[in-house]
Amino acid sequence: MTIADRWLLPDGMDEVLPPQASRMEELRRALLDLYHGWGYDQVMPPPVEFLDSLLTGTGTELDLQTFKLTDQMTGRMMGASADVTPQVARMDAHSLKRQGPVRLCYCANVLRAKADQYQGGRSPVQVGLELFGHAGLEADLEVLRLALTSLSVAGAGEVHLALGHIGIYRSLVEAAELSLEQERAVFKALELKSPGALSSRVDECVTDPALAEMFRALVTLHGGPEVLDEAREVFAEAPQAVGAALDQLRALHRGVMAEHPEVEFYFDLAELRGYQYHTGMMFSAYVPGYGQALAKGGRYDDTGRAFGRARPATGFSLELKLLATLTPRESRGNGIWAPAEGEGLAEAVKELRQRGERVVQALPGQRTGPEQHYCQRHLVPADDGWRVEALPAFGDLT
Amino acid sequence: MTIADRWLLPDGMDEVLPPQASRMEELRRALLDLYHGWGYDQVMPPPVEFLDSLLTGTGTELDLQTFKLTDQMTGRMMGASADVTPQVARMDAHSLKRQGPVRLCYCANVLRAKADQYQGGRSPVQVGLELFGHAGLEADLEVLRLALTSLSVAGAGEVHLALGHIGIYRSLVEAAELSLEQERAVFKALELKSPGALSSRVDECVTDPALAEMFRALVTLHGGPEVLDEAREVFAEAPQAVGAALDQLRALHRGVMAEHPEVEFYFDLAELRGYQYHTGMMFSAYVPGYGQALAKGGRYDDTGRAFGRARPATGFSLELKLLATLTPRESRGNGIWAPAEGEGLAEAVKELRQRGERVVQALPGQRTGPEQHYCQRHLVPADDGWRVEALPAFGDLT
Repeated sequence: MTIADRWLLPDGMDEVLPPQASRMEELRRALLDLYHGWGYDQVMPPPVEFLDSLLTGTGTELDLQTFKLTDQMTGRMMGASADVTPQVARMDAHSLKRQGPVRLCYCANVLRAKADQYQGGRSPVQVGLELFGHAGLEADLEVLRLALTSLSVAGAGEVHLALGHIGIYRSLVEAAELSLEQERAVFKALELKSPGALSSRVDECVTDPALAEMFRALVTLHGGPEVLDEAREVFAEAPQAVGAALDQLRALHRGVMAEHPEVEFYFDLAELRGYQYHTGMMFSAYVPGYGQALAKGGRYDDTGRAFGRARPATGFSLELKLLATLTPRESRGNGIWAPAEGEGLAEAVKELRQRGERVVQALPGQRTGPEQHYCQRHLVPADDGWRVEALPAFGDLT
Repeated sequence: MTIADRWLLPDGMDEVLPPQASRMEELRRALLDLYHGWGYDQVMPPPVEFLDSLLTGTGTELDLQTFKLTDQMTGRMMGASADVTPQVARMDAHSLKRQGPVRLCYCANVLRAKADQYQGGRSPVQVGLELFGHAGLEADLEVLRLALTSLSVAGAGEVHLALGHIGIYRSLVEAAELSLEQERAVFKALELKSPGALSSRVDECVTDPALAEMFRALVTLHGGPEVLDEAREVFAEAPQAVGAALDQLRALHRGVMAEHPEVEFYFDLAELRGYQYHTGMMFSAYVPGYGQALAKGGRYDDTGRAFGRARPATGFSLELKLLATLTPRESRGNGIWAPAEGEGLAEAVKELRQRGERVVQALPGQRTGPEQHYCQRHLVPADDGWRVEALPAFGDLT
């Protein structure tokens, strides 16, 4: 193996160099501070768990994305965490076991076996929060507001919020008494967003003509807030739960607009992402110039059931590497270049550092200069000790 | 598999709950800020690399500690990082390719296949720094000072610093012209710190009587700074490199004492930890009550050679989970409990959060109180809006 081969990194397993790593660190702190300010307690999930607990109730997609490891100590199969959310649900259900609402947040490296279009390649840094123990709309609204505030903290300007509610489709399926097979057929047609395919499947599976009409309407119900008004008419005779879901979307729209009037809403009542997983509202937030959502979340009640405790849950997550690209790369602060030695220099350097300054001291014999250390100032000898001055090249910056 | 089994975590793969996770986050920030202030640029190494580059020049111990993964995309073997240091050396040698001294720091989750006595079980959070490109003592001294300052930032009081220098033993081996086999035999006896075994091996392998005497003396040369004076006599006729190593230890002692007079020194000239790896001074810092070192480091020149660029290098690392236990657990700040609703409440909450306060708002119908959310104050209605007051149970704290 040649030297050139040795440093090739696996696809999607990236290293982060200066100054981008500092930018990510700053953003990590800003987000965790934001969540802390709203009462979210930080947790750190284990990077590796036994497969049984890691994949309980999460579906096959996550299974295929999980790196498998053999535990040399027990012979059992373990998996590297590919998604923090189920882990945090376990921590709430089993480890914390608190009564009432529990707010948790995290920032964790996860691993993904395959490099799909997922954010962060195969080594995303997942940041997010979960609100457990409250089934009401207030919890969903809080989560939505925090997702949008996160994006604005990261520097996003224009944000498009795609909002849906899995309860609409679920209630129709229930009312139509579809078999599992029929449900799958209708689901596939909806996933393709194909009115023709959907219509054929509905003709085959749904006997009640009013319900059939509602199913057919699903693929047309997407667009701005006016979609909610259309839906009110389409679903006037629908099961009560459909109306309740629409009311929730309306209330979330109102609630978000009050705080974030600049957000563009897009409703899609046929959106079925995470159907196995979500139980209520679900959202994706987009920023122009990015082909993928920068924040994703929604309600996923009862995930903790597998761990002995079904709990309402709602939350979202972001990918830090991608999010950090929203604003231009910058270094942390403006350093001061200091020479290798000089009388009273050690004290001057110490004092500057104590005042929070970044002081990069030359090492004896060093030939490279301050430019590669993000320094625009330097320490120069003065009559009464040492003085900080702008470097000649940056003279106009002081 | 029963519910009780599902949440058992693999040995050494721990989750971190509130408030300990916040404590770790605080410490992480304090350490990275300290390193930033000294001119260290943060990097984030990839959590997984191809085995060839991950284990190049690192020896068998790290190989055995590395979780192996198959890359589904290429069929090549990958390994999860078990030690960040060689990765950072690769980043310096290959990715950054800067001339002159380069200072890098990191905080990264690593994985270890076996739960030995290693800090942090099998999922340590490794924090540390490396200074590349400078072979002089100033670099070693800077690294030592930063290791000690890190411990004091973490809350360590009494610190014992064990200091050694691999150059002493290496020079003697070279002067005695030991074969590889002979060197291994002597090395084993020294590792056992057994004067008897050492004496036998030396009798067998070392023909020069003066050199033999020096080898035998190695196991006795440990203790306080007086050891350096003893060593000066023992090694008076030794190869020049031995004297140079002793001079370095003396200078490091003086340099550290000037900044950290409280540190207790322990010299051990027969210390051979990381023999395959280290090339100069090496140290371990201990704190009473902890059976293992809290910081470990030293010089390890030329690690980057495998990546096409041999560079002087010195640095250290800490384990964040262990380090966070130095000071008692505490929550981040003192939260304010807010009711679910009230006139003008949203504005009051928003304003407090903007001022940096942590406000935990009750959700409608919530029956649990502020005590589980680290709140000692609450928001109460007042004539002119809302007022922050101490909660009755904490009335004496305001």
